[in-house]
Amino acid sequence: MNANSNNIILGANQYGKAEVRLVKITRHTDRHEIEDLNVTSQLRGDFADAHLLGDNAHVVATDTQKNTIYSLARDGVGSPEAFLLRLADHFTGSFNWVSGGRWAAESYAWDRIQAHGTGHDHSFVRNGQEVRTAVVVKDGPATHVVGGLEDLTVLKSTESGFVGYPKDKYTTLAETTDRVLATDIAARWRYNPSALGALDFNKAYDDVKALLLEGFTESYSHALQQTLFEMGKKVMAAHEEIDEIKFSMPNKHHFVVDLSPFGQNNPGEVFFAADRPYGLIEATVLREHGSDAGNAWDGIAGFC
Amino acid sequence: MNANSNNIILGANQYGKAEVRLVKITRHTDRHEIEDLNVTSQLRGDFADAHLLGDNAHVVATDTQKNTIYSLARDGVGSPEAFLLRLADHFTGSFNWVSGGRWAAESYAWDRIQAHGTGHDHSFVRNGQEVRTAVVVKDGPATHVVGGLEDLTVLKSTESGFVGYPKDKYTTLAETTDRVLATDIAARWRYNPSALGALDFNKAYDDVKALLLEGFTESYSHALQQTLFEMGKKVMAAHEEIDEIKFSMPNKHHFVVDLSPFGQNNPGEVFFAADRPYGLIEATVLREHGSDAGNAWDGIAGFC
Amino acid sequence: MNANSNNIILGANQYGKAEVRLVKITRHTDRHEIEDLNVTSQLRGDFADAHLLGDNAHVVATDTQKNTIYSLARDGVGSPEAFLLRLADHFTGSFNWVSGGRWAAESYAWDRIQAHGTGHDHSFVRNGQEVRTAVVVKDGPATHVVGGLEDLTVLKSTESGFVGYPKDKYTTLAETTDRVLATDIAARWRYNPSALGALDFNKAYDDVKALLLEGFTESYSHALQQTLFEMGKKVMAAHEEIDEIKFSMPNKHHFVVDLSPFGQNNPGEVFFAADRPYGLIEATVLREHGSDAGNAWDGIAGFC
Amino acid sequence: MNANSNNIILGANQYGKAEVRLVKITRHTDRHEIEDLNVTSQLRGDFADAHLLGDNAHVVATDTQKNTIYSLARDGVGSPEAFLLRLADHFTGSFNWVSGGRWAAESYAWDRIQAHGTGHDHSFVRNGQEVRTAVVVKDGPATHVVGGLEDLTVLKSTESGFVGYPKDKYTTLAETTDRVLATDIAARWRYNPSALGALDFNKAYDDVKALLLEGFTESYSHALQQTLFEMGKKVMAAHEEIDEIKFSMPNKHHFVVDLSPFGQNNPGEVFFAADRPYGLIEATVLREHGSDAGNAWDGIAGFC
Repeated sequence: MNANSNNIILGANQYGKAEVRLVKITRHTDRHEIEDLNVTSQLRGDFADAHLLGDNAHVVATDTQKNTIYSLARDGVGSPEAFLLRLADHFTGSFNWVSGGRWAAESYAWDRIQAHGTGHDHSFVRNGQEVRTAVVVKDGPATHVVGGLEDLTVLKSTESGFVGYPKDKYTTLAETTDRVLATDIAARWRYNPSALGALDFNKAYDDVKALLLEGFTESYSHALQQTLFEMGKKVMAAHEEIDEIKFSMPNKHHFVVDLSPFGQNNPGEVFFAADRPYGLIEATVLREHGSDAGNAWDGIAGFC
Repeated sequence: MNANSNNIILGANQYGKAEVRLVKITRHTDRHEIEDLNVTSQLRGDFADAHLLGDNAHVVATDTQKNTIYSLARDGVGSPEAFLLRLADHFTGSFNWVSGGRWAAESYAWDRIQAHGTGHDHSFVRNGQEVRTAVVVKDGPATHVVGGLEDLTVLKSTESGFVGYPKDKYTTLAETTDRVLATDIAARWRYNPSALGALDFNKAYDDVKALLLEGFTESYSHALQQTLFEMGKKVMAAHEEIDEIKFSMPNKHHFVVDLSPFGQNNPGEVFFAADRPYGLIEATVLREHGSDAGNAWDGIAGFC
Repeated sequence: MNANSNNIILGANQYGKAEVRLVKITRHTDRHEIEDLNVTSQLRGDFADAHLLGDNAHVVATDTQKNTIYSLARDGVGSPEAFLLRLADHFTGSFNWVSGGRWAAESYAWDRIQAHGTGHDHSFVRNGQEVRTAVVVKDGPATHVVGGLEDLTVLKSTESGFVGYPKDKYTTLAETTDRVLATDIAARWRYNPSALGALDFNKAYDDVKALLLEGFTESYSHALQQTLFEMGKKVMAAHEEIDEIKFSMPNKHHFVVDLSPFGQNNPGEVFFAADRPYGLIEATVLREHGSDAGNAWDGIAGFC
Repeated sequence: MNANSNNIILGANQYGKAEVRLVKITRHTDRHEIEDLNVTSQLRGDFADAHLLGDNAHVVATDTQKNTIYSLARDGVGSPEAFLLRLADHFTGSFNWVSGGRWAAESYAWDRIQAHGTGHDHSFVRNGQEVRTAVVVKDGPATHVVGGLEDLTVLKSTESGFVGYPKDKYTTLAETTDRVLATDIAARWRYNPSALGALDFNKAYDDVKALLLEGFTESYSHALQQTLFEMGKKVMAAHEEIDEIKFSMPNKHHFVVDLSPFGQNNPGEVFFAADRPYGLIEATVLREHGSDAGNAWDGIAGFC
């Protein structure tokens, strides 16, 4: 190695076990409950020797992290956020060189199968409407909890348009006052750290999701940006414990097919749903003078 | 080319346009309806000259097939099966060298968004529970219609076991009388050609899906094979117009995590949901002396 | 269940373990070899009692099938086809109610990493150019071996056109004599059963792949159908042991972008590569009076 | 909306067109060249009115951004990084309210098809070994260029072990001094802004890739962390123009299959390649006193 490598150093790092698929069945009675998660645990702290010397004395094995996830689940999950907080406390409390980390989960909803007119006790069908996400970031004294959801696909068949944009030499798009507006809602919301203790994360999640959907339906949309902001404002007006919400939403183009060569009109009835490219709208709605985000958002893909 | 190429000939062939993404909004009133399909059209007939000589005189352009799909959709879709039948009639009726073909669709369900306590008029959310499939095969005089669904993920948290299987030198699996049984239901059912005229395909679909789900919940499962057969029998007992139903269902293993190293028991509460490998169970349930399937099943992946 | 369920019977069925990920390192010397497969084993035979009665006495556990795959690999893989033939012989030879089955594999190629000017002894990089496929179908006395590959993406930037196709009221496509032709080659070739004994499957695979690629480059393409047939003919002319080859190839449209609104020409230089829809061309090239295919092709997706 | 919505404000935002699939053929001679990119353009600046008022006067349409990408490509791509820099200059130079943005590309390599012993003039085959990535972030005066690659899958069949890690009550992993080490290399490297003018990005890319591969082969690996750091150090020692390199690398577990129940040993020959969970190692290697990263890394998924 040449001389200038003397000043090459280790920077930020974290490691752990990713995508631990955990299904928890709670069978206190014959009416079972199911929780279905995909959990990732990543530790931060003093791991320099592993990188620089190959000395693993501080490297809590990723296999150990996986075992811990399953073991802690034996006592119940409760909510993704609450479970990740328990993992954070466990790892930072058990190893003095582990100063923090990042714990994340996807969770998947199940409905009871309707059989003979009633929801079945122990048979379930995956809901599939969206994926719930949760992240806990602990870095020194601060602990951040970020709730979220993704792949919640919605569409308005009218009450959307796009006009008044600047025209330059590269502009060929025609204005329209009636179009299909479709997107996959991906949203992440950061809870005020001071509110974490008293929160029912599952209840908050259900309510935020309902507000996002309702917000999408309301008002004429002059741009996806406007709709996004209205959705965010609606959530935060109702949830004082949320200080910030970020969106990353594709504008999934539905092009009106030109049927005139075939002697037909097409008043917004027949659409080609395109895959790529797509618009991509990302924005943050936040509470002025809200809590400090710290590094809560680092490493969340696709959010500016 | 050497001499033996003289006896190299063209065999079965078909071609067309695949995955035409069609969204149809019906706006007869302010309460819109949405149909969302992914349509594939493939023609069969006399296309030898295109292959052998590069002469395209018979090659109805795949772009033309796409245009036709959109144009015919202007008059409504109705059901995937009915729409594919119209495409089949169009192409075989318009070009005398097109003797048949295969038309297939996936369709995706949308629910009305619940806003302010009621289903919204023109705002929808993708349901995501399963993908509906439909295939029409026309080959000379015969026309086959195959309904179906896939990716309908279900799970029973008890009332399933696996015992009594043969043990050989490669057998290490322990018997169990209480396990999680989980699968992605993929089913395809073939309608009796003589019943096609009077059928409401959407109604049949909804009912078959409900029966499959209900069938999954019933009885103790001694093997996924048994549950599959019961599900099929239940559908066919209720639907005289269906002569055959095929399943391709993974056994999605949920392994009980051994928590004993950590001083915990695990009475069927904490599971590792594995990705690969998985069991794969495929079987046909059919009506004795039912209609002839002809080539209805050719090219359907994953069904024996 | 109502009376008509009396005539509901079990039809064709098979079951097994799918996607057993097997990596075999051969370390006879310090220069290691690697084989990387994804193996699926499915058994056919007398499994009626499992379906009808939940009696598993004949159900060789899919876990046992998985174990067998790993155990037989201890003695070497050799080639996907040879390995699947060993599995077929094992299962049909070990259980008298197993009359046949279907064994399939994907395999993934690795290259030695070039380090300090030479191929490394035990460090490899995934090649990623294509996926090799193999299928063995055994059904009673007949044994079929089908080699193949998929996802071999190729493109010609000229020497391709599409003219002379029929024009109807739905035709809007313009003729072109110079276009980009791009496809993902998926091909499956069936070996003459009488030739299996003496075959070097790996050598045949390498040669067929090279011929397919070379065939794609040759001659002006008047249609993908023509190019496909030429590729197939080229393979079969050189390989007497192959009786049939099937293709399923998308026409991956590359649209010339209209730059005239921006004052630019575009003589086949700037293209939009579209995702969906795409053309789909499927055809069989076969040897007249070749061996009988039996059910060799059943259940192979996307091939007519 | 209730009173507390008064303090709900718009935060960071960006928008644009994502995944514009661009294929550029350069045909100055009969020996064509191909460049294949997936380009995303996102603008930052004063877009508050679109979010707050639905006023699009500043919203350069994402369709316009797409058109611009194709138009600028008419004059050549050159390298992903150089092309993104041109886009950045164009948009920030054309609209005074566009203060910056983020432009990203994936690019896909193609090889000439070997036909009749030589590389063909205009027929290509996708290489598929890895995906090249590039990002340009411009925010006020600073411009950052981040090169990268992902999905470069590598494996060492020996010279790797994992011992000396801490053991707690959740530790069940056994130590090993000879294991398979496999990962998908994902790396992103940030160029020193002062070096951008003179850089040949394609040459730098090829060399960094070669060094990463070579670095992976070298030395016994005591932990993936150690190997990662060595790879990074090797790149930065050879490339003074790179100030930082980040890795996100899964530890793709290859478990030695226990063949002892079948009377076989398994000295590192037969492995089960697992999908999930996997280890995940992320770290930064950087030059002490290097250039300021600013917000170059924001929004890059999976890198801490």
